[in-house]
Amino acid sequence: MTNDQGYVVASYLVHGNLNFHKKAQDIAVGLTVGSWTDLPKVKKEQMIPHLGKVIDVKVLNHNSNEIPKALLMIGYPLVNMNPDIPSILTTVFGKLSMDGQIKLIDLHIPDSLLTQFPGPRFGIDGVRRLLGVHGRPLLMSIFKQCIGLPIHELEKEYQNQIDGHVDLIKDDEIYFRDDYAPVLKRIGTFEKRNQHHKEKTEKKVLYAVNLTGPVTQLVEQAKHLSNSGATCLLLNVAPYGFDILHRIAADPDINIPIVAHPAFTGSFYPSPYYGLSAPLLLGKLMRLSGADIVLYPSPYGSVAMPQDEALNIAKQLRCPNNIHRPAFPTPSAGIHPGLVPALYRDFRENFIINAGGGIHGHPQGTSAGGKAFSDAVQAVVSGRTLAEAAEDSGELHSAINKWGVL
Amino acid sequence: MTNDQGYVVASYLVHGNLNFHKKAQDIAVGLTVGSWTDLPKVKKEQMIPHLGKVIDVKVLNHNSNEIPKALLMIGYPLVNMNPDIPSILTTVFGKLSMDGQIKLIDLHIPDSLLTQFPGPRFGIDGVRRLLGVHGRPLLMSIFKQCIGLPIHELEKEYQNQIDGHVDLIKDDEIYFRDDYAPVLKRIGTFEKRNQHHKEKTEKKVLYAVNLTGPVTQLVEQAKHLSNSGATCLLLNVAPYGFDILHRIAADPDINIPIVAHPAFTGSFYPSPYYGLSAPLLLGKLMRLSGADIVLYPSPYGSVAMPQDEALNIAKQLRCPNNIHRPAFPTPSAGIHPGLVPALYRDFRENFIINAGGGIHGHPQGTSAGGKAFSDAVQAVVSGRTLAEAAEDSGELHSAINKWGVL
Repeated sequence: MTNDQGYVVASYLVHGNLNFHKKAQDIAVGLTVGSWTDLPKVKKEQMIPHLGKVIDVKVLNHNSNEIPKALLMIGYPLVNMNPDIPSILTTVFGKLSMDGQIKLIDLHIPDSLLTQFPGPRFGIDGVRRLLGVHGRPLLMSIFKQCIGLPIHELEKEYQNQIDGHVDLIKDDEIYFRDDYAPVLKRIGTFEKRNQHHKEKTEKKVLYAVNLTGPVTQLVEQAKHLSNSGATCLLLNVAPYGFDILHRIAADPDINIPIVAHPAFTGSFYPSPYYGLSAPLLLGKLMRLSGADIVLYPSPYGSVAMPQDEALNIAKQLRCPNNIHRPAFPTPSAGIHPGLVPALYRDFRENFIINAGGGIHGHPQGTSAGGKAFSDAVQAVVSGRTLAEAAEDSGELHSAINKWGVL
Repeated sequence: MTNDQGYVVASYLVHGNLNFHKKAQDIAVGLTVGSWTDLPKVKKEQMIPHLGKVIDVKVLNHNSNEIPKALLMIGYPLVNMNPDIPSILTTVFGKLSMDGQIKLIDLHIPDSLLTQFPGPRFGIDGVRRLLGVHGRPLLMSIFKQCIGLPIHELEKEYQNQIDGHVDLIKDDEIYFRDDYAPVLKRIGTFEKRNQHHKEKTEKKVLYAVNLTGPVTQLVEQAKHLSNSGATCLLLNVAPYGFDILHRIAADPDINIPIVAHPAFTGSFYPSPYYGLSAPLLLGKLMRLSGADIVLYPSPYGSVAMPQDEALNIAKQLRCPNNIHRPAFPTPSAGIHPGLVPALYRDFRENFIINAGGGIHGHPQGTSAGGKAFSDAVQAVVSGRTLAEAAEDSGELHSAINKWGVL
């Protein structure tokens, strides 16, 4: 694509009884200069820098009885767009999103535009540096419950999670009304717990606090939380819009990692006919907008996603590029210790295991639940089976008895 | 639902081989307090104000061979949410959006929460008052093209649209890079044209200028444009996020109507299995967030939507409630004068006809194209057929010759 540096190239999967070549031409013209063939020559010369172009049309099922489908690749001139997600999405999938069975599969964004997005401030290496943990997947736990609990109960639950050897602990994403445990109180209380733990064991923990409020105040709120001692932020990216992630990540005064929650993204990616592909939405767009850690459904567990899709998200988050740091894929939902070998086989070293029920539901409680995960992680990185490791770990043994091994 | 004033009630369409009653219970508990049956009694008492409840489970196809489907209604306590769209969507459709074939169909929002949203500042009556037009649908035209054109060419096109008797003229929604015709220049130039036109004919026109930039600056930018003489704003709501529409509409210093463009919303609504229903997304949420005018695909035209869906959007925008003003439905895309009788039959008096190609593509040009629409509108409100009206209107006659009548 040496010739396409001046273009954002969008790939679409289109279903329908269509002339796909005509459709591609209509898109390239209709979403850029509006009309072309009827323009006088002098007008054409004026418009050509703004005209979209058809890069490729691949009909995918020539000789089948299925609904015809094709992959269209259309280039949109950079000079038509601002360097932000709303501008790009409106250009390449604004009106077009409503025009029949069409799904936005990928965006090729040239370096000159990519450099104008912040990308992760910490990324995989940065988060590892903050935690001082190398050579193994990280372990994140979720509060079993946040809503309605007073601070002293949350504090107890927090300490149980710390005692379970986890690396990160996050608020519930639905934690908006925190009247009984206001955000600054949580940060003060939990970070003190982190501090004690570090003094005792030299192990660091990050607490990802849920960033909430009017979108117009989120940057200030993020600064305020960071200045008040927060070590990590959690953001429901899709409900607030990708551009606010971009603005928080780009702000030089906000110096803590951002965990992107996939809340609401299931409204976009699961249909084969409509919306955006999961690797684009949860991989590419999250990374370039500045997420350090991205949660999403794992190939296993209770809220599952096809394995190739989950791996393609990880690929988008981690693939080397000269511009942005790699971000941590964090397969989530219904994860228990017996899934650790499968997750490690799929995602290798640089991912985060995120568990809620698989920690709190452990027969011996939350701390034992964390310990079981931690022992499972140690096992897989040192090449042992869980059965072997369970001989030395009562916690892992109990976990396997309860949930089994995949 | 007298008993549900303390709840936001979400209705979901769920497909799958499921125990729908169990699924509903799992949602009500899982998306609120996390767990229930295993809680001790004292804890249950503490948690009950925060617990979701199953309002209804309707299995829709008991005795058919289709995939089983059901309508679930779940109540979420208001005390769990902030009065903003990101908080509500994360609560009722955050994690859940990724959990199988589930579509969010509707939200019942009690008055106590609804009053915390701005709603339209102008609404149907307010926009009519600004324009001084009553008793007929309004007519909006779109620039044939914005990108890449110098201000003097846009000015000429603007004047042609004015001369075509339109009530509102809007920027193209993909107009982000306006180097040749910067936004303040456009406002100054076009509003001067509006002024001249008003002096000459007493007819007012609103120009909806595209609001663009970082989401963190949109409120300030809206004020700046308003203070610089803008008479109307255009916003790509979904790409920027609904909360920014809410914040712009709620700002007392921004005293001009807002046109909501449906760009990117096709990523959410068309699938029967996933996403949000069109009446919720483009109707209810747009209105409560503060859109005065909402564009969306019409039941006819080039980018079409099922008729009942288009009418249900209009119903959501216009249905009387004691809290928010009604907003203008604006069926769009591929509209030509021959569709006016069908649109009038469907939407009656209080809607806006929005046309681009159906105006600019008129055999005698843009002004004649606007005049043809205007004459078609006059015909339908006075109970004449288009054929009758075309006897007195050469412009309408030409339009019907070109596009026909539905």
